[in-house]
Amino acid sequence: MMNKVITISRQFGSGGRTIGKAIAERLGVPYYDKELVDEVAKKSGFSHEFIEEIGEYASVTSSFLFNIAVSPHPMGLVDTMSISDKLYVCQANTIRDFADKGPCVIVGRCADFILKDRPDCLHIFIHADNAFRAKHVLENYGETSKPMDKRLAEKDSKRKVYYKHYTNRNWGEAQNYDICLDSGTLGIEKCVDIVCDIAMMD
Amino acid sequence: MMNKVITISRQFGSGGRTIGKAIAERLGVPYYDKELVDEVAKKSGFSHEFIEEIGEYASVTSSFLFNIAVSPHPMGLVDTMSISDKLYVCQANTIRDFADKGPCVIVGRCADFILKDRPDCLHIFIHADNAFRAKHVLENYGETSKPMDKRLAEKDSKRKVYYKHYTNRNWGEAQNYDICLDSGTLGIEKCVDIVCDIAMMD
Repeated sequence: MMNKVITISRQFGSGGRTIGKAIAERLGVPYYDKELVDEVAKKSGFSHEFIEEIGEYASVTSSFLFNIAVSPHPMGLVDTMSISDKLYVCQANTIRDFADKGPCVIVGRCADFILKDRPDCLHIFIHADNAFRAKHVLENYGETSKPMDKRLAEKDSKRKVYYKHYTNRNWGEAQNYDICLDSGTLGIEKCVDIVCDIAMMD
Repeated sequence: MMNKVITISRQFGSGGRTIGKAIAERLGVPYYDKELVDEVAKKSGFSHEFIEEIGEYASVTSSFLFNIAVSPHPMGLVDTMSISDKLYVCQANTIRDFADKGPCVIVGRCADFILKDRPDCLHIFIHADNAFRAKHVLENYGETSKPMDKRLAEKDSKRKVYYKHYTNRNWGEAQNYDICLDSGTLGIEKCVDIVCDIAMMD
């Protein structure tokens, strides 16, 4: 019986989502990714699109958008907080609620940091080189007008800035995670095997 | 048959050496740590003590010691190089020679970077929290007059600066390694199992 909360942080295009989903399926526990967005949308009143766009990538420097105050809030948020901060608090509360319900897999959104003091967690980071990620992105999300290298670098940079802003830690630094795996050199299937094997340890 | 060169980078006190040695024993391949120092000493003429003290921790900023020129050299070193640079070149050549000989485990000394373009390598990073490391250091190296937290922080900082200087990469950043493991949460034995299992993959 697997009794852990597994958080998956990942470089864009590294297959972290695919790995997270496969781990949850194999271990028979809930997988929270889009479901997290649904829950945050329900609780916060923010739209799905807004949460998906801003939830991990907010430009956390000052911007007109983030300084707009919104109306009184069901999650106890303070009206002078920026929209980005409000969304972060909603997400953090939802992640804690999910973890309290029992074993599960949670993808992204600083879950490793938000749950860092819980002893029943396993924090994973998935990364790969640009060639692997480019192939994965192309297959799963298709092409855009932006050159692939730029697309990858921009996403990495935004996640890095967002993570640093809310956690004061460096995104992708090994010591923040129990296990970091290169899905490019190890393969997606092997990453799933390793994490499931460790998750089943006493 | 294991046909890989395994490099182990590690935080001081994380048990990386113990893990490296156990992996080499289990896989039946040579383990290069002190042996690397012996070989570098033989080839370079530097003393064992000097290599152990400077080989991963050199204060790479200007210092009187590092600006002394030494006499003509059997490894083709340039006389205007600093002693630290000369030692780095000797170590890098020796690491490449060891890797050329066949499957093995090499601990520390930027081996992950030096061998980064070889496809037959598995690059590992081992880390743990300060409580685990303090216990491990105390058991294996004993006490000194310096408080443990300071001792750990100083070693980390020196390795970080040395690695950055010679590789222009950030020490302990997950994307430099195939696998990063927290020996504190996973346990030393499990780390050995995981690496051996991956090393035996085709």
